[in-house]
Amino acid sequence: MNGAQSLIRTLVGHGVDTCFMNPGTSEMHFVAALDDVPEMHGVLALFEGVATGAADGYSRIAGRPAATLLHLGPGLGNGLANLHNARRAHSPVLNIVGDHATTHRRYDAQLQSDIETVARNVSTFVRTTESTADLGLDAREALAAAAGPPGSVATLILPADVSWSEGGVVAAPDGGSRGGGAPDAAVLDAAAAALRSDERCVLFIGGRACATPLLDAVGDLAAATGAEVLCETFPARLERGAGRPPVERLGYLAEFAMMRLDGVRHLLLLDAPSPVSFFAYPGKPSDLVPEGCTVHPVAGPGDDVAGALAALADLVGAAAGGAVRQVATRPELPSGDLTSQTVCQALGALLPEGAIVSDEGNTSGLFAPGATAGAPAHDWLTLTGGAIGQGLPVAVGAAVAARDRRVVALEADGSALYTVQSWWTMAREGLDVTTILLNNHSYAVLNMELDRVGVDEPGPRAREMLDLGRPDLDFVSLARGMGLDATRATSTEEFNEQLARSLATPGPSVVEAVIPGLL
Amino acid sequence: MNGAQSLIRTLVGHGVDTCFMNPGTSEMHFVAALDDVPEMHGVLALFEGVATGAADGYSRIAGRPAATLLHLGPGLGNGLANLHNARRAHSPVLNIVGDHATTHRRYDAQLQSDIETVARNVSTFVRTTESTADLGLDAREALAAAAGPPGSVATLILPADVSWSEGGVVAAPDGGSRGGGAPDAAVLDAAAAALRSDERCVLFIGGRACATPLLDAVGDLAAATGAEVLCETFPARLERGAGRPPVERLGYLAEFAMMRLDGVRHLLLLDAPSPVSFFAYPGKPSDLVPEGCTVHPVAGPGDDVAGALAALADLVGAAAGGAVRQVATRPELPSGDLTSQTVCQALGALLPEGAIVSDEGNTSGLFAPGATAGAPAHDWLTLTGGAIGQGLPVAVGAAVAARDRRVVALEADGSALYTVQSWWTMAREGLDVTTILLNNHSYAVLNMELDRVGVDEPGPRAREMLDLGRPDLDFVSLARGMGLDATRATSTEEFNEQLARSLATPGPSVVEAVIPGLL
Repeated sequence: MNGAQSLIRTLVGHGVDTCFMNPGTSEMHFVAALDDVPEMHGVLALFEGVATGAADGYSRIAGRPAATLLHLGPGLGNGLANLHNARRAHSPVLNIVGDHATTHRRYDAQLQSDIETVARNVSTFVRTTESTADLGLDAREALAAAAGPPGSVATLILPADVSWSEGGVVAAPDGGSRGGGAPDAAVLDAAAAALRSDERCVLFIGGRACATPLLDAVGDLAAATGAEVLCETFPARLERGAGRPPVERLGYLAEFAMMRLDGVRHLLLLDAPSPVSFFAYPGKPSDLVPEGCTVHPVAGPGDDVAGALAALADLVGAAAGGAVRQVATRPELPSGDLTSQTVCQALGALLPEGAIVSDEGNTSGLFAPGATAGAPAHDWLTLTGGAIGQGLPVAVGAAVAARDRRVVALEADGSALYTVQSWWTMAREGLDVTTILLNNHSYAVLNMELDRVGVDEPGPRAREMLDLGRPDLDFVSLARGMGLDATRATSTEEFNEQLARSLATPGPSVVEAVIPGLL
Repeated sequence: MNGAQSLIRTLVGHGVDTCFMNPGTSEMHFVAALDDVPEMHGVLALFEGVATGAADGYSRIAGRPAATLLHLGPGLGNGLANLHNARRAHSPVLNIVGDHATTHRRYDAQLQSDIETVARNVSTFVRTTESTADLGLDAREALAAAAGPPGSVATLILPADVSWSEGGVVAAPDGGSRGGGAPDAAVLDAAAAALRSDERCVLFIGGRACATPLLDAVGDLAAATGAEVLCETFPARLERGAGRPPVERLGYLAEFAMMRLDGVRHLLLLDAPSPVSFFAYPGKPSDLVPEGCTVHPVAGPGDDVAGALAALADLVGAAAGGAVRQVATRPELPSGDLTSQTVCQALGALLPEGAIVSDEGNTSGLFAPGATAGAPAHDWLTLTGGAIGQGLPVAVGAAVAARDRRVVALEADGSALYTVQSWWTMAREGLDVTTILLNNHSYAVLNMELDRVGVDEPGPRAREMLDLGRPDLDFVSLARGMGLDATRATSTEEFNEQLARSLATPGPSVVEAVIPGLL
């Protein structure tokens, strides 16, 4: 058994059976070993950012890691932005980066570079395996690091000769999974006292607290104490819709977020960081916690959030099953001019039961959460790390993880272009993904930010750098070039009809919605 | 004057007047300052790998650095692969990476990451400017580092508040440019003795030795001594064609390279590393220098190559003007089935005077150097670092640097997909770039490498990972989606006609050549 075979068998033995890959010569033995271990499912991406974003999306939905396979330092570089998003999502990802053979390093051949250094930007675990016999054990250790908590990116660097040499040893799972840090009793007591008081409390949730079963416990706690529930601005996976505890997300714009938090006296952090502004702006604070508000770090990403919630429920006497539930309600199918608002309304009217929404709609998607709040139960995946180009790859991974569910990628024109190669993988794998491409011909968010950072009267050359027109991007043509069915809607009626058809048609398709500039 | 304005004025004062950019919120003041300093030309890319590759291509042709503008760690990640290629090309590039405001760092907001760590993978100079007053001086120092020799990537990290604050100071050029290390007298003497001997000598050239005026000096030396001239496999810029000293490139395949070097007794390195295999292969050597051959490190990338060549000419008595010159000759326009060979033959028949070829044709481009050897004088730019996805961005940069010349991007299907967003920038800037898209529906090089690394009978699942069909990519549709004219040729006659039309038509266009699999 060579190294590659032992690695793949170790992964499969740990439940990791999907690898998103863009391999090169140094990874050829890993690729060849796919035929020896049929339990491993290799998914080809035409760009590494697709592979890493798909691993993130897979992990968010499957609840277990996918692997990636990348080609040396440049391949890792191409995958880095979506590994950054995965890091912020606390998604467990095993990132395998092929390297030159150990005997080849001294020659500083063209593709050589310092891979470990780059990997540290996104990884909690970085190791270069130096001998074939160690590979299985290293993979096991990497998977344990990735699993967390907190879930994270673990990077295993795999020299070509370690992969091709005989002497591989499969490492069996060692059974132990870490439970996370125990809640601090003093913090719990203070938090419980706040919840029992008459002062305004917010349960500020993120990470695992946004999904079953913890989300139900959050709802129970809120119902029992009158606390409000707010979610971090960009959760990895928020379960929502009819029948689930309704959760409002804190707004992206610091101005609105501060208004929303005004008057709150206690912020209880449940797998979420204390809220801060996404960017800094001249003369404005970065910290969004209002003056006089106490922050209670109840449980962080490395902690036992379930245990903390159970302890809080005990302390305040919250009964299970008390949570308020979202009532089923949908907007009417819209009519009139096609705008980002009517697009989102149509999505609310048509979103199928059990759908997964990968939301990178940016400015054009602002109305989507409201329009879908009472739609049938669904999952909402967001841009956790702010590195755009995540939405389509995450949709790929989510669809691979849940082949029986419809995935909707709510995608903006500017963001789509970073990882548009995702469409080809959707087509190859026959994934049930509907892409709603919101085309406003601009980096609209930057037009807004230009004003917010204090540029009062931007000149024509600055505006030019934010404009995606001249030439206009034709996403129908791009999608067809990647082998997908695609249509363009310029009226709300067309959009309603095209979205309904896409949602009902197996396999991937794209609906391009041509909408006006900002909002 | 704010920091951004002082930075741009400093760059312009140093002759850096082009910035390839994909900005975000933290770079908005840099973008706004474009209207204050009209000498700076901002070129928008829709993906960072386009911006960094374009900066490389620009530098190779203009002989002076371009700047980039990228958005935090993820933006740098997306640009890393082509910065790797720029590093290997010894292209001077000023890589500007926007960062959060210094006051915002402590909050670990979503987009924060360790930028300096990533930058070190590709940069000889990395600095985060901490105060607005220092920005001009830091930029001057970065530019000096980038200029070299050796030319390199210098990364300046620019926090948003350093950019937006008042108090910027323009740094004037300090006039000094480094000449490079002086040649070692003992090495020169030994090299001259070898050239005077009857033993077989090769002038192994790379970098600056591949272009005017040094290439002429190489030709003179070869003519005077009978030494052969060989070029590194992947030169940054090789001047060639009618009237220039003819230069053969060492082959990519180690098997052929070793045959070519067999019997050589002296290898004189002139701005080129000693030849090594691109990858390692089981049981095969990485070092391509034959046994019994002495390697003479005459001048490296950090040295005064011109001085070394002049000293060698003195020592062996080589007269200026003695170099053999390539005779003008072109192949006939081909006919018959369309193959990679007829595509390359047509290119040889039609390549215009003064053209620049950005060659990422990979397996399909193997016949191109031979077919164009006697074409009118032109420049040939190659994949210096092996990170595919370089060809189209380098074509963008070359075309911006030389708006009066025709650029031909000889591009393979697999490679094109990494940075296909380049086409949009070509269209926006109206660049005279002809893309010849060689579509063989596969990662053909990997099919070859699978065999070379010793995988004897790859199974269907391995083959699947190297196959770009199912669905077939339609590059005409992709190009039109980016706003370019595009046509598809399935016969040699169609290709001849379409290539001629593209070369004669101002602005960018794409000719997709549908060719059989491997060679």
